[in-house]
Amino acid sequence: MTTYGRNQVNGTAEGKVNNPYMPRYEELLSRVSNFSIIESTLREGEQFANAFFDTAKKIEIAKALDDFGVEYIELTSPAASEQSRQDCTAICQLGLKAKILTHIRCHLDDARIAVETGVDGVDIVIGTSSYLREFSHGKDMNYITEKATEVINFVKSKGIEVRFSSEDSFRSDLVDLLNIYRTVDKLGVNRVGIADTVGCANPRQVYELVRTLRGVVSCDIECHFHNDTGCAIANAYAALEAGATHIDTSVLGIGERNGITPLGGFCARMYTADKNYVKDKYKLHMLRDLENLVADAVSVQVPFNNYITGYCAFTHKAGIHAKAILNNPSTYEILKPEDFGMTRYVSIGHRLTGWNAVKNRVEQLGLSLTDDQVKRVTAKIKELADIRPQSMEDVDNLLRDYHYAVTSGDQSQVASVLSSTIAN
Amino acid sequence: MTTYGRNQVNGTAEGKVNNPYMPRYEELLSRVSNFSIIESTLREGEQFANAFFDTAKKIEIAKALDDFGVEYIELTSPAASEQSRQDCTAICQLGLKAKILTHIRCHLDDARIAVETGVDGVDIVIGTSSYLREFSHGKDMNYITEKATEVINFVKSKGIEVRFSSEDSFRSDLVDLLNIYRTVDKLGVNRVGIADTVGCANPRQVYELVRTLRGVVSCDIECHFHNDTGCAIANAYAALEAGATHIDTSVLGIGERNGITPLGGFCARMYTADKNYVKDKYKLHMLRDLENLVADAVSVQVPFNNYITGYCAFTHKAGIHAKAILNNPSTYEILKPEDFGMTRYVSIGHRLTGWNAVKNRVEQLGLSLTDDQVKRVTAKIKELADIRPQSMEDVDNLLRDYHYAVTSGDQSQVASVLSSTIAN
Repeated sequence: MTTYGRNQVNGTAEGKVNNPYMPRYEELLSRVSNFSIIESTLREGEQFANAFFDTAKKIEIAKALDDFGVEYIELTSPAASEQSRQDCTAICQLGLKAKILTHIRCHLDDARIAVETGVDGVDIVIGTSSYLREFSHGKDMNYITEKATEVINFVKSKGIEVRFSSEDSFRSDLVDLLNIYRTVDKLGVNRVGIADTVGCANPRQVYELVRTLRGVVSCDIECHFHNDTGCAIANAYAALEAGATHIDTSVLGIGERNGITPLGGFCARMYTADKNYVKDKYKLHMLRDLENLVADAVSVQVPFNNYITGYCAFTHKAGIHAKAILNNPSTYEILKPEDFGMTRYVSIGHRLTGWNAVKNRVEQLGLSLTDDQVKRVTAKIKELADIRPQSMEDVDNLLRDYHYAVTSGDQSQVASVLSSTIAN
Repeated sequence: MTTYGRNQVNGTAEGKVNNPYMPRYEELLSRVSNFSIIESTLREGEQFANAFFDTAKKIEIAKALDDFGVEYIELTSPAASEQSRQDCTAICQLGLKAKILTHIRCHLDDARIAVETGVDGVDIVIGTSSYLREFSHGKDMNYITEKATEVINFVKSKGIEVRFSSEDSFRSDLVDLLNIYRTVDKLGVNRVGIADTVGCANPRQVYELVRTLRGVVSCDIECHFHNDTGCAIANAYAALEAGATHIDTSVLGIGERNGITPLGGFCARMYTADKNYVKDKYKLHMLRDLENLVADAVSVQVPFNNYITGYCAFTHKAGIHAKAILNNPSTYEILKPEDFGMTRYVSIGHRLTGWNAVKNRVEQLGLSLTDDQVKRVTAKIKELADIRPQSMEDVDNLLRDYHYAVTSGDQSQVASVLSSTIAN
């Protein structure tokens, strides 16, 4: 169990000085620089509408996640189906560095099947909100506590990790929640879990609940956030700020409905908070391949606006941005593309372009133009791009033609280039 | 100018009683139930790598946004290109309900062109962070203040709205920022703007900065959040909690790099906080068409996991979820699909299915089976789905075959259905 309270915010002297995004003073609760990922593509991700992973694909994904460096890999309950059970056993036998967990209902029958698969830990979940107690399992808190005690003690007797999580925690009664968490903490669970199963929580709520819980239990705290209302990454961050220790992710965020905290987006967020910590722990340049692997397996396209690996994540367009980026990438880039195996692209063939960006391209092409000349040809690019977008090739041809005309000294040729209505 | 401090959290008595996601006590600063949208698809969105909107497309998008109900539509600077200027003028002449804004650099030349287009307001922006001051425009704070004063006074003299925004606000010196915001507030700007231009801010930072600013200026506060690290929606929410009044969005979040707060995701978040307020202001059922219009215009696919309109946003898969959803949709759904013109789908042809969901399908098909029979056929579905995913048609055929066999009373026929390896 990780020792609670060992704060590593801005852990190095260098970090303290150089990182303007971290609090200026240490926040005692914060685990922003000391957290673990529970990667749930093979559990939550299997609940995504399109997901059907056969054994070979599960093993391929598990190996890739392990190579990337996640601390835990969570698998579908072996009680779900016979193949799920066999797959769980097979993945436990791969000898991965990551610990293997499986996620079960709070039933002794499920726990018995789970512990036989060879997992390093069992994640137990039960709904505690009044909604789920009324419309799902229909049980009261005494029953839940009794059941949880029985299943936790059984799993602990096998000498493996055990986590107890409520479901729909943010619509559960706070006193009920704290009662059961304190009870299971005293039973010696490794982690308690908070789950925003419906995706309704916002960061300030998360911070408050996790901070309160941090004062009640001494074990680790895991958090699981759905993304229905767009807060899954921010909530994970707020949870770590309040002392949570483990965050659930899936590749591309796949899961029930529109999914949970995505691994890539979470890495982007944490990299911004503590770059070296994240770079040292995870092979960030593997993100793109990992996402392509999972996207192919579930037949979706990586979203155009995906964190880090979306095709435009490092494309700069407006003239004012392009100018500053060329002077110093930190001006408009919080993520260094090369840390993720990506490259920067400055787009210039459009009506929002600026002469500094065009000048940079002129230099890249080995051409020589004065600033006034660059401004004149930039005006031409804007004029052409008002009619239709100009490709890099269009722009390069125009720059070469203009350069040729200018160096020839033939003013009519220059005028002809600048008056043409379509770039060659 | 909106009166600051008129808090409408949980505005109706009904809302106070029924909404478990709002604070139990009124938060005096909060504008969660009293905000305006500045829709920037035609400005920030034009900075998206793929975007090229001709005049007809701009007008089509502006009309659709107006019909949806956004309060403001922001357009590219008319100083960017001649066509940008003509388009700005044309949109101002449409007679839309939404106010039309244009977004310019802090230059008198740009302002002169802007006020001639007929806009209802001008959004002025200048970089205040040390990064932008050093590597972009190279100006100091005295210069910025002087320039801002000149441009603001000019725009005000024309009797239209004026906003002054810093750029890269979260990497700007706090004292510099507050100084200039206080100065422009005294000059009588309608709004000051905070912009997380690089997408580095997190919700607690946003809350702190907006709350501090709320104590310094009396004008409205607009916020603009990029999504590089996944907090654009959560930051918008935190800003409103701290007293911001206006949020910038774009359809599908399109903009520089991976974009800004998406209109749809923002609506999902605010709907969760105050459903009636959001439903009354905006035609939520138009979201899908609006997103398809913009996605087509910029040649992207709506992401598979898009808020509200993504094809799986209302698909429920795990057996335990499906059971509860069928009892009461509020158990696992924070957004009512019908409020957005969408429909719910409960997926049952997979290994994670449960007998309650199958029983529901049996009833939908008008078949009659006992609970034990449903459990037996559910086990068969899991067995088949362990081999390959089962379509709804596969499942329906199996259920009909099984029902036919059971009602025939022929036990060998029942056994045959349950032992078949591929569903018909």
